[in-house]
Amino acid sequence: LSWAISNQKLKMTTYSIGVDLGGTNLRIAAVDEQAQLLEKVTLGTQVTLGRDRVMDDMGAAIRRIADKYERKASLAGIGIGVPGIIDMQTGMLRESPNLPGWADYPVRAEIEKRLGTRVILENDANAAALGEKWLGAGRDFDDMAMITLGTGVGGGLILGGRIWHGMTGMAGEFGHIAVEPEGHPCGCGSRGCAEQYASATAVVRMAREAIATGGASGLLRTTSSDPEFSAKAVYNLAIQGDEAAKEIFRGVGRALGIVLAALVNGLNLPIYVIGGGVASAWEAFSPSMFAELQQRSMVYAAAAPPVPAVGAREASAQLEPRRSGKTIITRALLGTDAGLYGAARLALQGG
Amino acid sequence: LSWAISNQKLKMTTYSIGVDLGGTNLRIAAVDEQAQLLEKVTLGTQVTLGRDRVMDDMGAAIRRIADKYERKASLAGIGIGVPGIIDMQTGMLRESPNLPGWADYPVRAEIEKRLGTRVILENDANAAALGEKWLGAGRDFDDMAMITLGTGVGGGLILGGRIWHGMTGMAGEFGHIAVEPEGHPCGCGSRGCAEQYASATAVVRMAREAIATGGASGLLRTTSSDPEFSAKAVYNLAIQGDEAAKEIFRGVGRALGIVLAALVNGLNLPIYVIGGGVASAWEAFSPSMFAELQQRSMVYAAAAPPVPAVGAREASAQLEPRRSGKTIITRALLGTDAGLYGAARLALQGG
Repeated sequence: LSWAISNQKLKMTTYSIGVDLGGTNLRIAAVDEQAQLLEKVTLGTQVTLGRDRVMDDMGAAIRRIADKYERKASLAGIGIGVPGIIDMQTGMLRESPNLPGWADYPVRAEIEKRLGTRVILENDANAAALGEKWLGAGRDFDDMAMITLGTGVGGGLILGGRIWHGMTGMAGEFGHIAVEPEGHPCGCGSRGCAEQYASATAVVRMAREAIATGGASGLLRTTSSDPEFSAKAVYNLAIQGDEAAKEIFRGVGRALGIVLAALVNGLNLPIYVIGGGVASAWEAFSPSMFAELQQRSMVYAAAAPPVPAVGAREASAQLEPRRSGKTIITRALLGTDAGLYGAARLALQGG
Repeated sequence: LSWAISNQKLKMTTYSIGVDLGGTNLRIAAVDEQAQLLEKVTLGTQVTLGRDRVMDDMGAAIRRIADKYERKASLAGIGIGVPGIIDMQTGMLRESPNLPGWADYPVRAEIEKRLGTRVILENDANAAALGEKWLGAGRDFDDMAMITLGTGVGGGLILGGRIWHGMTGMAGEFGHIAVEPEGHPCGCGSRGCAEQYASATAVVRMAREAIATGGASGLLRTTSSDPEFSAKAVYNLAIQGDEAAKEIFRGVGRALGIVLAALVNGLNLPIYVIGGGVASAWEAFSPSMFAELQQRSMVYAAAAPPVPAVGAREASAQLEPRRSGKTIITRALLGTDAGLYGAARLALQGG
């Protein structure tokens, strides 16, 4: 009997539980070390009901999954991606604009106490980068940078297959690289950060600015008829040929090109991945992004691959690993699952 | 006898030979693994007499040193720092503005053939960064970036104690990060690169621009009386209180602050080292550099150390290793020896 049990244990697969704790959705997935998705759950994050309620929901959902797989697989740990600034040493969430009331809350210790399992806490943009490295656009590379274009502009840096945290866990803040040094003020205290030109928020602001200066009748019509005027609405106009909307995305591309040039010139990585909601507007911003990068980085220009055909989403999914010195700039592949897979990966590889 | 010899061999120290092959000086040093300088030789680089003459001079000087220490120490290898773009895999010098006629020349293979010893070829800015990491300002840290302000603006990145080359050996080109995207055209094909605002060449250009626009009488007098009007002359005026000269160095500081902010936001390293000839003007540019960085990097501002007293060169030499999350920006300590020590270090640590 004892031999049979230990033999069974030897054959047991290892899995981990990844959590994406966002301001809107709380998502949980169980993934095994062969990257097989065992289960995925999406709950609403009951932010308004308070921190303890969210912790209870998260704890219960994790426990349900852990109980279910207890006899089938061995749990390596739990990875949790959260939006905000994390103290890597203590596992405290220091600051999180999307999770009010969570500042200086010891998320890691609380979950570990509730579940008795090792927990790794990670910034959501870093987790997304690791997810894309593991199973997405960066899967054939050890070194990768990801830029996430959402409400803000986040980023994550993967070196040697692992998240590069830097000294205090704050590396990867590519959204605050200056692209117009005397430009629009940024919430971070600086001016002209990439976030002010390439986020969904920035697209809407630039559309309103274009309306205010006149001559953007298409944008004006859309904002009048659509109370929730969004970056997506601006993109829809752009692909219909609206010149003012197209110019806004050319600006997004220029900003990204400047950030990418700084990264290529400084780090010379093989691949840079663009994710987040605004990445869906790839067709509208990527031509000016590639043009700007080509002009601003001799490192890129020296060995740039042919500029991908606009709209070639499938092409980027089929990219062969290229180790010939060509710098690849491509779209993320995992969408909103990137952070979830990355969180699971963290627990599997031990941070 | 045989026992005595092998015992002596066991006690033999290991050393390496570092070479700094510049466009003006050819410098060679023998350094042991305890970082003791055994010998240092400076020769002129006879560029005008041709590549083969320079190779002969270098080969002869290396052989002289190797012969001298043959019985006293064991030679680990030879490291050579050269200005230019190197193909890391083949050890070819692809391009070097300061060494005309050396393009696509297999420097590594040629020296190995002449001397029968392993040779490591490295970009001079990378070698300087490694030297500062080994024995200079970065000696207490594993991760470090160096910005070298010379005729151009170079850079080198050290991660985990080793040079970060990137995919094609071109990482560390911090001088081509844009600090004024629509600014002065750069030789690299871009506009507004840091090199156009923080190099010795840029200081002289900005001084001439200030003279041309009028109101820079001090600069005008100096350029009239000094046919070799240099960045040092502008600095001398600045420390005498000349307002136009001071403004030029404030501009140098702003440019450096923007580059440093990009590096701190992206990489979150513990230390950034500023070297090269223009770093001597630290007193003139560092106040605006720190102010710009403080404003542009929340990562820096969140945990900035007190701004160092201006002119406190000694203080930076005595910096205690700080692992408390404070970002250190400081001057290089090894001057023109950084690249020489770095080249020697490369051979000792095997690349």
